[in-house]
Amino acid sequence: MYADHDPIVAFLGLGLISGSLAGALKRGNWSADLIAWGPRAPSLERGLALGLIDRFSLDLPTVVAEADVIVIGAPPEATVQLLPEVLDLALASGEPVVTDMASIKGVIVEAAGTSYPRFVPGHPIAGSENSGIGAAYPELFDGREVILTPSGATDTLALNTVERLWTTAGAHITHMSVADHDAALAASSHVPHMVAYALTSMLANHALSPMQHGGGALRDMTRIAASDPLMWRDIAMTNRDAILTAMDAMAQEHDHLRTLIAEADGDAIETLFARCRAVRRQHDDILNPLTLEPEQTD
Amino acid sequence: MYADHDPIVAFLGLGLISGSLAGALKRGNWSADLIAWGPRAPSLERGLALGLIDRFSLDLPTVVAEADVIVIGAPPEATVQLLPEVLDLALASGEPVVTDMASIKGVIVEAAGTSYPRFVPGHPIAGSENSGIGAAYPELFDGREVILTPSGATDTLALNTVERLWTTAGAHITHMSVADHDAALAASSHVPHMVAYALTSMLANHALSPMQHGGGALRDMTRIAASDPLMWRDIAMTNRDAILTAMDAMAQEHDHLRTLIAEADGDAIETLFARCRAVRRQHDDILNPLTLEPEQTD
Repeated sequence: MYADHDPIVAFLGLGLISGSLAGALKRGNWSADLIAWGPRAPSLERGLALGLIDRFSLDLPTVVAEADVIVIGAPPEATVQLLPEVLDLALASGEPVVTDMASIKGVIVEAAGTSYPRFVPGHPIAGSENSGIGAAYPELFDGREVILTPSGATDTLALNTVERLWTTAGAHITHMSVADHDAALAASSHVPHMVAYALTSMLANHALSPMQHGGGALRDMTRIAASDPLMWRDIAMTNRDAILTAMDAMAQEHDHLRTLIAEADGDAIETLFARCRAVRRQHDDILNPLTLEPEQTD
Repeated sequence: MYADHDPIVAFLGLGLISGSLAGALKRGNWSADLIAWGPRAPSLERGLALGLIDRFSLDLPTVVAEADVIVIGAPPEATVQLLPEVLDLALASGEPVVTDMASIKGVIVEAAGTSYPRFVPGHPIAGSENSGIGAAYPELFDGREVILTPSGATDTLALNTVERLWTTAGAHITHMSVADHDAALAASSHVPHMVAYALTSMLANHALSPMQHGGGALRDMTRIAASDPLMWRDIAMTNRDAILTAMDAMAQEHDHLRTLIAEADGDAIETLFARCRAVRRQHDDILNPLTLEPEQTD
């Protein structure tokens, strides 16, 4: 229905997330070309062979000059590195819409500055244990949330364009402030990782090697402790204040439960456990949106 | 090969675990009868119809009198209730071997007393999110660990009989002291549950409703917070000291990681995360023993 108006989309970096977005746009009959830039040819050639993009270039200015929408597909630190150069090139050409997909927004918005209102910070809550363009699949965003963190100065048309990109890909859009995004994600993703790390450390340092007697509970509670150490170091460093705040709240809850157990307050313990069961079940649909995607991580 | 010597096994209570053990013994061509007692007929009738047992009775003395080996299939509290009566009946008949499968051993051994050396405390590290005899399957123990906690006074022949039961069912045997078992399980199973409860409480109490933005990490880290509140209240109460000790160690690790993040000590953070990844991967085979059983919990 928007066929006459579909903008040319350029992906800077082509991996699991950006490749899946490209595939989802193709699935949605996006009528304009999908192009890509990257520092090396192999993943771009693979994306071309898979039919995810129409063409690519290793020259960044060429790709920026051709694009109507630029999607930066990189982790937080790499996005922070790349963004100033992209915005400079964008200012010097036709002022395309620019958006990113990094999981922390504070450092990104800081790196972007205020001189380019057509930059729209974004974060799709989707991923996989696998990585790389070969793992991309067009259903990755179906039913998933994409959080955008526009400011009052963000260009409305640019915002609308980014929203249309994601809804075409099957996602639904939420708007949040940068601070709220980073605080909410600290609680929903970053601190759960810190908890898995702390639990795994406790087990590793325990005299009785309790991990050798683990079952399904331990399998789930330590799985994400095997995540990429470098990536999680970056997240711990770039979202530090929000993570510390949520870790303090976590420590307080843990200490509260410890007190109830020490006092052998069975009724209060059961009430707390029953509330947790209810809360978890209320969120089953969000946490398991599609049985199609059993291996999703965030 | 032991066909001439297979003892008659009686299951007291017929659910997922005991039904699976019965099925595993049938699969292993156990040549003697498998019988069962329970307070109500339906699950016993179901077990008979499924071919898991050969006959049953609602009269406990009858079943105890007939059995060579008695397997109590009940949670900790119920096992504590039933055990003294079973041992009295056993003393009054042919002194059959008695074993249990409860996940905490301290309260069980205390309830058993010291007057029946043919009692062998046990705990299979296997389970499922499903429950009841209808969910039983003979592969449940394949590759899994069964921890036995005999004392110096435990009868050796009784111990050997219980070991043969479990190895026939596909499990491998570990011996531990009662205190070590309860401390190791506090760390490997009970405290991971307490951590999932504390994390879920933190998220439920958070002003930004972060659970609404959860992905795969949060799915795994909160799954067991939906466990049965009554059962986990019992575990928190019956293994209290060991759980408090492991919770303190967990709190210390969490606080240590918080300090590293507050100090922005990137190298120490990365070292800690890398060690956790290595430890988790070393235990992948134990935590995921068979792809056949994707839904196991402990």
